[in-house]
Amino acid sequence: MAKVLTSKEDNYAQWYNDLVIKAGLAENSAVRGCMVIKPYGYAIWEKIQAQLDRMFKETGHENAYFPLFIPKSFFSREADHIEGFAKECAVVTHYRLKNDEQKGGIIVDPEAKLEEELIIRPTSETIIWESYRNWIQSYRDLPILINQWANVVRWEMRTRLFLRTTEFLWQEGHTAHATRKEAEEETMRILNIYADFTEKYLAMPVITGKKTESEKFAGAVETLTLEALMQDGKALQAGTSHFLGQNFAKAFDVQFTNVEGKLDYVWATSWGVTTRLIGALVMAHSDNNGLILPPKMAPIQVVIVPIYKGNDQLPMIAQTAERIKKELTAADISVRYDDRDTHKPGWKFAEYELKGVPVRLALGPRDVENGTIELSRRDTLEKVSIPQQGITRYISNLLDEIQANIFQRAISFKKDNTYFADTWDEMVDVLDNKGGFVMAHWDGTDESEKKIQQTKATIRCIPFNHDEEEGKCIVSGKPSKRRVLIAKAY
Amino acid sequence: MAKVLTSKEDNYAQWYNDLVIKAGLAENSAVRGCMVIKPYGYAIWEKIQAQLDRMFKETGHENAYFPLFIPKSFFSREADHIEGFAKECAVVTHYRLKNDEQKGGIIVDPEAKLEEELIIRPTSETIIWESYRNWIQSYRDLPILINQWANVVRWEMRTRLFLRTTEFLWQEGHTAHATRKEAEEETMRILNIYADFTEKYLAMPVITGKKTESEKFAGAVETLTLEALMQDGKALQAGTSHFLGQNFAKAFDVQFTNVEGKLDYVWATSWGVTTRLIGALVMAHSDNNGLILPPKMAPIQVVIVPIYKGNDQLPMIAQTAERIKKELTAADISVRYDDRDTHKPGWKFAEYELKGVPVRLALGPRDVENGTIELSRRDTLEKVSIPQQGITRYISNLLDEIQANIFQRAISFKKDNTYFADTWDEMVDVLDNKGGFVMAHWDGTDESEKKIQQTKATIRCIPFNHDEEEGKCIVSGKPSKRRVLIAKAY
Repeated sequence: MAKVLTSKEDNYAQWYNDLVIKAGLAENSAVRGCMVIKPYGYAIWEKIQAQLDRMFKETGHENAYFPLFIPKSFFSREADHIEGFAKECAVVTHYRLKNDEQKGGIIVDPEAKLEEELIIRPTSETIIWESYRNWIQSYRDLPILINQWANVVRWEMRTRLFLRTTEFLWQEGHTAHATRKEAEEETMRILNIYADFTEKYLAMPVITGKKTESEKFAGAVETLTLEALMQDGKALQAGTSHFLGQNFAKAFDVQFTNVEGKLDYVWATSWGVTTRLIGALVMAHSDNNGLILPPKMAPIQVVIVPIYKGNDQLPMIAQTAERIKKELTAADISVRYDDRDTHKPGWKFAEYELKGVPVRLALGPRDVENGTIELSRRDTLEKVSIPQQGITRYISNLLDEIQANIFQRAISFKKDNTYFADTWDEMVDVLDNKGGFVMAHWDGTDESEKKIQQTKATIRCIPFNHDEEEGKCIVSGKPSKRRVLIAKAY
Repeated sequence: MAKVLTSKEDNYAQWYNDLVIKAGLAENSAVRGCMVIKPYGYAIWEKIQAQLDRMFKETGHENAYFPLFIPKSFFSREADHIEGFAKECAVVTHYRLKNDEQKGGIIVDPEAKLEEELIIRPTSETIIWESYRNWIQSYRDLPILINQWANVVRWEMRTRLFLRTTEFLWQEGHTAHATRKEAEEETMRILNIYADFTEKYLAMPVITGKKTESEKFAGAVETLTLEALMQDGKALQAGTSHFLGQNFAKAFDVQFTNVEGKLDYVWATSWGVTTRLIGALVMAHSDNNGLILPPKMAPIQVVIVPIYKGNDQLPMIAQTAERIKKELTAADISVRYDDRDTHKPGWKFAEYELKGVPVRLALGPRDVENGTIELSRRDTLEKVSIPQQGITRYISNLLDEIQANIFQRAISFKKDNTYFADTWDEMVDVLDNKGGFVMAHWDGTDESEKKIQQTKATIRCIPFNHDEEEGKCIVSGKPSKRRVLIAKAY
């Protein structure tokens, strides 16, 4: 099969777009900025959902569902929040269409104008805290640990499949606590869940840390983030967890009687990850032949392709293939046996490479005779002939090995592309000529941060788990106690 | 505990509303007609989703996700479709807010007006068939068997929690086929899945059949339905499956090359069930003490309440309770051990009755000594003391028995409230004085159907599985070959 993808060395952005479309993950829709998530892409989202949902529930969270619409007036109660989101809101103003009596066709019925416009949620803090006011009277009603799986809309001018779309899918957690300490612990607990998930399932190493004041969520006291490195040297924010302090409780007047019998405002967190994780997964691991999916995220983990000449060879192959499929399926491995006669084996090989299926098995008449099968790994493209006997154990181990190998490669890549810059010029050299993560000293001021932003890079976070170290700000030369993570980002 | 619910004999509508709110299933939100689905209600929806999703996947369907927005022009392509939905559409006209320079606060930015208004999907046939046009060239691309879990909006003037809300959650299947026969089979396959699910999981017996011309889905050739009977004698449509013929393929110009090499339009189906199933579940089984949930739909199947005087008795009880909980959990039974010291056992008993937990276990010091436990069934309110030994097997069987008993009661109720009317007066007597399903002859004409509708009842369906029978239309006296199902409905 001819190469179907632009090579990522030639044009990374085009490679990504080609890949998402040709692997059947998603495509642009007829609605500006909105994508269609196709079955293969949605199957990855279902895997993300299933695992995160499990992790949320294990830590005491429950799911609920709040309205899509937010009255305009709610939206403006928290000042920073409205400032952050007003520019990108879809607004419902009418609730009816009618036939156009003059010109034909249909028009919006001018008589069906809403008294108060409704905003389509870009995030749900406001509508949720309006409800929480009625739910919380006493410390006995706390904590509330709720998550919602939903669609949200942020009107984006420049969109890219998965990475930035007008409508996207996400989960948003919204918790309420009696004390600052509990809310802070929750913020960190969720960050750790996200980091665990991203590393163990998406096989993407992350740097966790705190956003600067200028980069934090509109309405938060503090935003924690996890940053992953893509193969083009750009950072991607894989999730955020916000400590909201008492900001929303104050904006929506949510007070409770605490253990001492005194009235106090409730402490809050919110946190989310989105369908952009699918974009990250694609960009972190894939190559010019197509997707490379970590086995834990692969909708199809093993594909079996029959190799035969003439239809009389097929039944014998089918029998063996079905037996192997059954055996693997019983071990919770997802298998497709592709015996379509509309496509040749070579075409199928390329197709499953494009789709990132971790293990491909090819089964011909000689294999059936010899009790062997040809196995090909997507991550290394290595081929090997193995005995059919013991295949389940072999593949089960191999899937673990592939998961580990993909993660290890991403760790190496991140290590090789993380630079410690001690001067402005060193930083600019990395950003302009190499790409990657820059670790550099920053004096903590807005002015210095703004200068850094002129390079098109941003301070991605003030990392946790990095030792204090005396140094000088690469912008101002003023003393600094720790390095921050700087990078261009998606 | 004092009765918290209006009795259903006094005011069925109020009883329902009280129950939904006080059992913590849902509540009205600050947005007109939109509800908040609270964790306990959403947990039931998750059970509905999980089981239906399994049944869809077992029959070859995949999930995907299409945009929330539909351009106004798409919406009007299928004439009947627009006629059916135009009156109830939320319309997005702008994409930005801004500060009001004169009066303060925020306003919709008049400069951010969309060129073409966007409709919030009331159902997704149009946006999906716009995509399918690009996906289908040949019979080899067929069938497409896609389902989507999503929110939709239909602007309702009179809303009721779960039963009729402006925004609701649902699944919508949209399939494309090469032949009429295949599409018709799919329509029926899904109806059977819905009926199976409704009877085996929701424990609600249904009558399946075909809608009349005037009651079918806007844009369908034929709509199949399942109708359940609520305790107040009204019907509730529990799901619909539409055979769309080639209507949407023609409206969106979706043609394919068939096996003979000729161009033809694609055949289609669509089908859905919504969060209103939760309302049906509540109304079909519950009583004046609260919910009665079939065990297969109960978020908590068993609750254990410790009965003790003074805190020194608690550790001993806790040890036994935790052991029993562990044992039951291992057998896939969902258990809550409620040892909150903020509420008395009597309060907890009432609370779990209200929430419809199928089995309640009460464990006191004497039980611990004797190796017994007190068990109470929610469906019959019977209490019995049972040995702790073998409890898992006992409860596992009991849950099956409760599921069967709730279904059997609903079957009896339906039987007792189904009337064969042979004259207009007999029908009116049932509708006005008794409530329930009326089986009556109808001549198949629009005129006669309109007269029936004047009673506020409708022809719910032309049932399958009913023998042909000569008779006379209760309206016109003209000959009729089969009875139809007539009822007032939600």
